[in-house]
Amino acid sequence: MVGASGYSGEELVRILLAHPSVDLVAATSRQLAGKSLAEVFPRFAHDKKAGALKFSTADATQIARGANIIFLALPHGLAAEFAKPLLSAGARVLDLSADFRVKDADVYREFYGHDHPAPDLLGRSVYGLPEIYRDQIRDAQLVACPGCYPTSILIPLRPVIRRKAIDRSAILVASMSGVSGAGRKVETDYLFAECNESVRPYGVPKHRHLSEIEQELSILGGEKVVIQFTPHLVPVNRGIISTIYTTIASNVVNIDPAVIFNGAYGEEPFVRLLGETGLPDTKHVIGSNFIDIAWRIDKRTNRLVLMSAIDNIVKGASGQAVQCMNLMLGLPETAGLI
Amino acid sequence: MVGASGYSGEELVRILLAHPSVDLVAATSRQLAGKSLAEVFPRFAHDKKAGALKFSTADATQIARGANIIFLALPHGLAAEFAKPLLSAGARVLDLSADFRVKDADVYREFYGHDHPAPDLLGRSVYGLPEIYRDQIRDAQLVACPGCYPTSILIPLRPVIRRKAIDRSAILVASMSGVSGAGRKVETDYLFAECNESVRPYGVPKHRHLSEIEQELSILGGEKVVIQFTPHLVPVNRGIISTIYTTIASNVVNIDPAVIFNGAYGEEPFVRLLGETGLPDTKHVIGSNFIDIAWRIDKRTNRLVLMSAIDNIVKGASGQAVQCMNLMLGLPETAGLI
Amino acid sequence: MVGASGYSGEELVRILLAHPSVDLVAATSRQLAGKSLAEVFPRFAHDKKAGALKFSTADATQIARGANIIFLALPHGLAAEFAKPLLSAGARVLDLSADFRVKDADVYREFYGHDHPAPDLLGRSVYGLPEIYRDQIRDAQLVACPGCYPTSILIPLRPVIRRKAIDRSAILVASMSGVSGAGRKVETDYLFAECNESVRPYGVPKHRHLSEIEQELSILGGEKVVIQFTPHLVPVNRGIISTIYTTIASNVVNIDPAVIFNGAYGEEPFVRLLGETGLPDTKHVIGSNFIDIAWRIDKRTNRLVLMSAIDNIVKGASGQAVQCMNLMLGLPETAGLI
Amino acid sequence: MVGASGYSGEELVRILLAHPSVDLVAATSRQLAGKSLAEVFPRFAHDKKAGALKFSTADATQIARGANIIFLALPHGLAAEFAKPLLSAGARVLDLSADFRVKDADVYREFYGHDHPAPDLLGRSVYGLPEIYRDQIRDAQLVACPGCYPTSILIPLRPVIRRKAIDRSAILVASMSGVSGAGRKVETDYLFAECNESVRPYGVPKHRHLSEIEQELSILGGEKVVIQFTPHLVPVNRGIISTIYTTIASNVVNIDPAVIFNGAYGEEPFVRLLGETGLPDTKHVIGSNFIDIAWRIDKRTNRLVLMSAIDNIVKGASGQAVQCMNLMLGLPETAGLI
Repeated sequence: MVGASGYSGEELVRILLAHPSVDLVAATSRQLAGKSLAEVFPRFAHDKKAGALKFSTADATQIARGANIIFLALPHGLAAEFAKPLLSAGARVLDLSADFRVKDADVYREFYGHDHPAPDLLGRSVYGLPEIYRDQIRDAQLVACPGCYPTSILIPLRPVIRRKAIDRSAILVASMSGVSGAGRKVETDYLFAECNESVRPYGVPKHRHLSEIEQELSILGGEKVVIQFTPHLVPVNRGIISTIYTTIASNVVNIDPAVIFNGAYGEEPFVRLLGETGLPDTKHVIGSNFIDIAWRIDKRTNRLVLMSAIDNIVKGASGQAVQCMNLMLGLPETAGLI
Repeated sequence: MVGASGYSGEELVRILLAHPSVDLVAATSRQLAGKSLAEVFPRFAHDKKAGALKFSTADATQIARGANIIFLALPHGLAAEFAKPLLSAGARVLDLSADFRVKDADVYREFYGHDHPAPDLLGRSVYGLPEIYRDQIRDAQLVACPGCYPTSILIPLRPVIRRKAIDRSAILVASMSGVSGAGRKVETDYLFAECNESVRPYGVPKHRHLSEIEQELSILGGEKVVIQFTPHLVPVNRGIISTIYTTIASNVVNIDPAVIFNGAYGEEPFVRLLGETGLPDTKHVIGSNFIDIAWRIDKRTNRLVLMSAIDNIVKGASGQAVQCMNLMLGLPETAGLI
Repeated sequence: MVGASGYSGEELVRILLAHPSVDLVAATSRQLAGKSLAEVFPRFAHDKKAGALKFSTADATQIARGANIIFLALPHGLAAEFAKPLLSAGARVLDLSADFRVKDADVYREFYGHDHPAPDLLGRSVYGLPEIYRDQIRDAQLVACPGCYPTSILIPLRPVIRRKAIDRSAILVASMSGVSGAGRKVETDYLFAECNESVRPYGVPKHRHLSEIEQELSILGGEKVVIQFTPHLVPVNRGIISTIYTTIASNVVNIDPAVIFNGAYGEEPFVRLLGETGLPDTKHVIGSNFIDIAWRIDKRTNRLVLMSAIDNIVKGASGQAVQCMNLMLGLPETAGLI
Repeated sequence: MVGASGYSGEELVRILLAHPSVDLVAATSRQLAGKSLAEVFPRFAHDKKAGALKFSTADATQIARGANIIFLALPHGLAAEFAKPLLSAGARVLDLSADFRVKDADVYREFYGHDHPAPDLLGRSVYGLPEIYRDQIRDAQLVACPGCYPTSILIPLRPVIRRKAIDRSAILVASMSGVSGAGRKVETDYLFAECNESVRPYGVPKHRHLSEIEQELSILGGEKVVIQFTPHLVPVNRGIISTIYTTIASNVVNIDPAVIFNGAYGEEPFVRLLGETGLPDTKHVIGSNFIDIAWRIDKRTNRLVLMSAIDNIVKGASGQAVQCMNLMLGLPETAGLI
């Protein structure tokens, strides 16, 4: 693990420490060097490995030599810099940042405000959403783990886009995220007394995650898809609800979402279908790698409303990264996650 | 005041006790009869009038005789029953329930699940949204105070609908409400440990408030308007955010929302325009009667996104009721509210 | 499992479904009969056993025949009624209610307000705190699982009481608990909007848990111990902090809490000692069976302040019950818990 | 006003803008210079004065010349530096920091970790607790507004200490505070996701406020009083509960707290006595300048337990400062506060 001081890093530590087939051999952090995982994260204080393993300042070559898989839990921009020598040294890398999600360096610059540090690597990464790219992930050297909002939006939309059940030009999404989504960022906006008893939209109209959502929807749809997306900050630690409005395609006469979703996800280990009577609630997915999906057809408006819930730090980040790792290492996909 | 044990009732007590031109002469409640306001609501324990005024079981005639204005803070269904004799006795009534908001008894039955108790009175009520019906409210005998979601949606939409700036067939709304919106309802769903660390959509796709929203939008638009509306429950005590997606009408070339909103609301005492750079946050309106409105044009999608924030118990209920009362009594509209 | 609709019952289901050596064979509930665990608890919707196992209305004999261990997760009063036939039928019972914690039927009546339903059984129960009664629990037929506050208070106090390091007549405790401690009780007091943004003492000065705390402290101290105890309700779902004020005994010259606590708990699997520099925080124990303990000597006042943190539903209820079960079945004590 | 970017500063703005007899003429802040109050605090966006008044970088002489009263809402250390020239210029100063609360420069150094910047001024300040020092405040040139915890502790203790009803050597206090008590401090500890779902003691055993609490209790008691005090951080925005354990003095035969408290506080405008059946709840004092006080005698332990609730930002800071200002200016003590 490279970088671990954020919420995703801490959750990754939690999952890997308990994983039946994985041995966490090194964690690097300039800032935390010399401290054990147990000291940095009091909730693991009892764990022997967490007590023994100290954050180091090992360089890329050392890391690459000692590990089968390397997780990067670094800010965007920095992650790509770290990935370059690791990949050159032959390591397999799972990057939790945004650096390798977008395939187009121009789009990256547009949304992230700086040039991509390693544009030549963009073509080599696989977007780490097993529900879409399972086979490619197995063999990947570089996996770009998806953002939390994209995960909550792409999984519900994939089957109806693929089946051409909806109008691809009329997709609108309102998402609500817990505050851990902002990371352990020490800014006034994320102080307790600023977030508690507060609900607010932000990143309107072009949140960074829009870039990867539209990229993946365009690939799924076979043509450029542009959507409306509004995230909102709500005072919970974890959890995302995405409410997705779609218009049923004009040439579709009888749509049966149950058939479509059961067909697409009946065998998926982490997708739970709540159907047309259930409704998602973040509290049912917190701490787990599941995505819960419900739907409603509104005959009055000819729309299909999809609603999903995930834990932004698990299925939206570290859990999904471990799901990818399991695939890369030929382990059962649910190992360490259920 | 008739009925006062809920959150709206308590807030109404707060505002009326501090109102410079109003004397709260009676509060009735079968359940609380004999207790003073100060006993029932500890936050008013110091207030002399709250200590002196006891909940009574006065009947309609007595109430009508003793007060210039009567507030009904009762559950829907019951409110209409109480209103009948009061109106017959010549009283002026402000009803906080849903009973007189919808003009069509069939729509009422469709959304509220029972026959309207006084359909003949529906034609006599004025919808108590001063930003639309100021003049009619002044002279009304019966005012139906709007629901919280409708208030947060109708005020932002009114100017762009009237100006025909948007496509009336493509309006979608995602709203997030604090838990007081459910009232002081003693149900498992609203227990602390069920709401805290939980975000969830509900009332999909036909929440009751949809009936009054569509009624009023249809009146504003001059034709039947059908919208998509999804409320979400978020763990705050108070506050609503409504994010409203509209499509700019195809025949509109240059739209300047600032001109439209300043023209419509520049003089409104309780509308604060945040423009195209600000964003609403419920924490800035909590405890006040303001509605904050921001907007963004998304050129990529040709949409105009409107976002509003209100306190669901103040502008969304009791504050707006007092604003109406001020109009009915010829008082300054902001009396007791700023 | 008998009774499972509360928070402790749900947590017990969670732990038992994942337990490596246990097979949950039956769950009874009159109210939920016919529904599967997966339907009642959406967070287990993916679990095969939870999907297959339906709540039944099996009677005591059937239950006793089919299970090695029976958990009672029922309200006090009712639990004792259920326990009688189960014990007669030879079953081993873990009771999560308060019914078998207090040994003296008079004390039970004083604190719980009704006669004990099975006073003859009081002598047969073992108080299920492994850190004190490990050996007795192994062989017990009836284990009374401790209350949440008592767990958080007795474990820190035991070593200093036994060592006679403190004045047994000068113990004061201030505890803060999350709202799940009240159970899934549908009362106005526990509504979200009544608990959120609220902090309040309650049960002053004689909370029910005082009865078992003083009973166990008296046994430990070898003489009647009376303490001061004030619980407070704070707006978190889970977690208890207990701050325990003790006066160092007048004949104790040099007290070294580190020696005392390491001696007592150095080998305990679920006690984590934070020492004289660390401080407990409920967020580090949530979801786990650990108790975190810190201490400070205040030379200005000659007091020793102990501070502990637990998850009230895990170490304070269901986790501790499973810890006892592990002991009763000869399993590793941490099985299913770490 | 000097300094206004923190929570106390913002609350002071709120109260002063609505105060019937006060004109806020200047607000200084290096950091915010040039911005209007309305821009900095969106909740006052509608207020004409807040829109007109801009933060300036006026120096002490200019400020002193233009205002009858000057509020300092600055960090400790800095406040004393600012106070010096203001006092020299003849201004009357209300300081919300800790700089002038402690009379002894050595105690200040012990608790605040640096030398006092203006020790010669310590003798000139009046401790701004009207319930104790009302007369001195009227004529003071320099008022040191008390800390939030001290306010919640000193008001309940004053009558029983003065009456010698309790043992002055056996006072213990457990307090719980909302996160705004830490100020708008941008540190990891106060991030939403670190405070939410967290309860934790801190500042054990020597929180800074202990210095002023013991100073004032010693003055009241006529001898040095040393107490035990443990603050806890709980996830609410505002509010403090203090639970105060006292031992009834051995020579006191019949103690009647109702007589004592009614005698002491029956006429106090901001003290509400809940007696021996009521219990304080922070939600009943939020936004107000009241302190709610309840008590219980525990015959089993011969203790008197006092419990209080305040809003830490109002009665614990800015509201109390305005209460002092009203006294200094000869205004009704409750002006702008009820």
